[in-house]
Amino acid sequence: MSDYRGYEGRSLEFLKQNKIKVGDTVKITTNSENMATIMPRYEHSDDQHIVVKFKSGYNVGLEINNIKKIECISSIDINQKKELSPTKPNPQLPKILLLSTGGTIASKIDYRTGSVTPALTAHDLYSIVPELDDIANIDAEVLFSEYSENLTPEHWKKIAEKLDSYSKSDYKGVIIAHGTDTMHYTAAFLSFALAGFPIPIVLVGSQRSSDRPSSDAASNLIAATKFIVKSNTNGIFVSMHHTESDDDIACHFGTRVRKNHTSKRNAFETVGGVPAFIVRQGEIIQNAKNQYFKQKQYTPKINVDTRVALVKYYPGYDPKLVQDLINQGYKAIIFEGTGLGHIGKNMYGIIKKAKESQVFLGMTSQCHDGRINMAIYESGRDLLHLGITPLSDMISETALVKAMWALGSGKVDDLMLANIASEYTE
Amino acid sequence: MSDYRGYEGRSLEFLKQNKIKVGDTVKITTNSENMATIMPRYEHSDDQHIVVKFKSGYNVGLEINNIKKIECISSIDINQKKELSPTKPNPQLPKILLLSTGGTIASKIDYRTGSVTPALTAHDLYSIVPELDDIANIDAEVLFSEYSENLTPEHWKKIAEKLDSYSKSDYKGVIIAHGTDTMHYTAAFLSFALAGFPIPIVLVGSQRSSDRPSSDAASNLIAATKFIVKSNTNGIFVSMHHTESDDDIACHFGTRVRKNHTSKRNAFETVGGVPAFIVRQGEIIQNAKNQYFKQKQYTPKINVDTRVALVKYYPGYDPKLVQDLINQGYKAIIFEGTGLGHIGKNMYGIIKKAKESQVFLGMTSQCHDGRINMAIYESGRDLLHLGITPLSDMISETALVKAMWALGSGKVDDLMLANIASEYTE
Repeated sequence: MSDYRGYEGRSLEFLKQNKIKVGDTVKITTNSENMATIMPRYEHSDDQHIVVKFKSGYNVGLEINNIKKIECISSIDINQKKELSPTKPNPQLPKILLLSTGGTIASKIDYRTGSVTPALTAHDLYSIVPELDDIANIDAEVLFSEYSENLTPEHWKKIAEKLDSYSKSDYKGVIIAHGTDTMHYTAAFLSFALAGFPIPIVLVGSQRSSDRPSSDAASNLIAATKFIVKSNTNGIFVSMHHTESDDDIACHFGTRVRKNHTSKRNAFETVGGVPAFIVRQGEIIQNAKNQYFKQKQYTPKINVDTRVALVKYYPGYDPKLVQDLINQGYKAIIFEGTGLGHIGKNMYGIIKKAKESQVFLGMTSQCHDGRINMAIYESGRDLLHLGITPLSDMISETALVKAMWALGSGKVDDLMLANIASEYTE
Repeated sequence: MSDYRGYEGRSLEFLKQNKIKVGDTVKITTNSENMATIMPRYEHSDDQHIVVKFKSGYNVGLEINNIKKIECISSIDINQKKELSPTKPNPQLPKILLLSTGGTIASKIDYRTGSVTPALTAHDLYSIVPELDDIANIDAEVLFSEYSENLTPEHWKKIAEKLDSYSKSDYKGVIIAHGTDTMHYTAAFLSFALAGFPIPIVLVGSQRSSDRPSSDAASNLIAATKFIVKSNTNGIFVSMHHTESDDDIACHFGTRVRKNHTSKRNAFETVGGVPAFIVRQGEIIQNAKNQYFKQKQYTPKINVDTRVALVKYYPGYDPKLVQDLINQGYKAIIFEGTGLGHIGKNMYGIIKKAKESQVFLGMTSQCHDGRINMAIYESGRDLLHLGITPLSDMISETALVKAMWALGSGKVDDLMLANIASEYTE
């Protein structure tokens, strides 16, 4: 990364004149005197401002003309490779693998310099959460460095392939550090692609980065580690705050979980039930009555085909948009219908056409909770007759991911109704 | 409606031979003897079965060959026009207008005969809910007879035009009987189209029809009526069960409410807060701190333009689908982004194109709750720079409807950020 990322023209000159670069801690005088960190800028910035992060955690743009004095207090080399200095393994403790994919949880460096390069090496991890040292020997590996809104089904495949390569290892479990935005989509994919994976895989994110006092990074990581060490189960889990408090961390079944709040630490919720496990002050409370995977044997099928659309139906929805999907070669459509699983009569014509084109049509509900039932009202019965498959209480995002996976495996009709990884409650 | 709707071939012959028609109550003997009602069938049925509704409320198909005996106990003429026989008005009581649009709440006849013709005349209403007689003089009018999954923006306009014609009446308020599937979309439209409407408009639905013991039709109607009579407010409300009990009925602000469960009676929830009012055993509890409409003056703008799409973003979403929207002349797109309001980097190119084509781009979140904040992460800042408008905590369905209305009024950019009818919390 450049020492002056995003700066140009006057602002670049200003930094160079004052021998200051991105990442430096500075004392800055405008009307008052404050300590701050120089942040990188983005391509679309003008050249009259510099961006600093104050101790409060807020980024502020300061007009160069208003800066009376600036002086460098300390400097970091943001391009320096982090040294790996894992603590000495304790042979008494189990081994855990930690894969980092990016996101807030892995963005300690980001919050100091604005760079999105995660640095969740073993060294960094232990420096953030020294308590882990007493629970397990953790090997850490950076897979990639993306906020999860930028992850694609191709990334899912890479994560699954990496995990598959460890299916016969001596690890007690795997933690995946992941951005929270699409963590539940990834969890769903791994659930289908790695059905029966012998050891628990726990996705962990954080809603507040580790340089903030309210960060949930450490408590979520510790809970995930304890869960792996103490619970005697396998499956794909999402481990995040259960309540506002640090005391209860939920381990959700990966196919039954959604991010339901934009900013709260307990943003993730198990839909239509309680979390499968709760880690309460280090102890594991089991709520799940059933095993996660419906088949014990590990049968990886790491395939994905993205010719699947998730369509949220609404009044005024134009059936032509489904025609576009047919024209573009889509092979499956998951509808988020209304109520018990309905779409308007104006859609019947295009539904027929889609069926004639061999498109798989599945129905979920835009109601966040509850089960589809297409037998109660005439609309539902009509749609059943037209060939739409009701997907009971599978979450729509899970249904989308499952259809991508099932299509990749070449058997979308058969696989969509099978209960593979607790995507249907019983 | 035909006396034998949907029956043909052998099953039609069977009914005729036994002098039984759709809607009749019959005593039917198979392995046991039961009372049941003959239901209509649908075009796609075979001719070996008849469909009956047992007292349990369930519809069952019976194979003709297994019916040992069938006899008609009582018969109704399903084609007979209902007589209007309103009770004599009580001059001491306020007047309320009840408009019926269809849905389960208006489907008493439906559940007896399977017809979707609602029959919520004054006569029917009083026969279902005689308690209303003591609260208000109710004039009832049938606007149309559709389950709400079949309602379109054109229906919204008709409802609004009808209401506008009563803006200077002596009614104390208006109740709209409405299917629950899209009730919140209609409520949002009326909120914008009829901003400042002087008397309360309360949409009422039911999750269980009035012929079932657990029906919520009566309790919701009574609560809506009491709310209109006793509360001294105006606005657009949705009145449905607040809890599983009949005691608490919530009156939600019409722009802040979603159907969040497919089947529960308390399916509707105010997003990010408590319902504006609760009717608790007839008494009105006010939670709302602010008036619903931000301007007092009634300024109807009954326009709608459906060239608006609601796009739920997900990993693997193909930017080409946005190109299709541009090609088809869409003028506004509301994204349901991830987390705080993000979509992937792969979308940046098409976002630029959409902006060049003068398409309004708004951002909401697929998280059910919480506020958009696009200033925190680089993705959000990039999207802001590309010209996406963050819609704070406006519900995505409300944002879709508002954009259709604002586009119809010709000022989408100006209107989307204005707080007109409590669509933004303060």
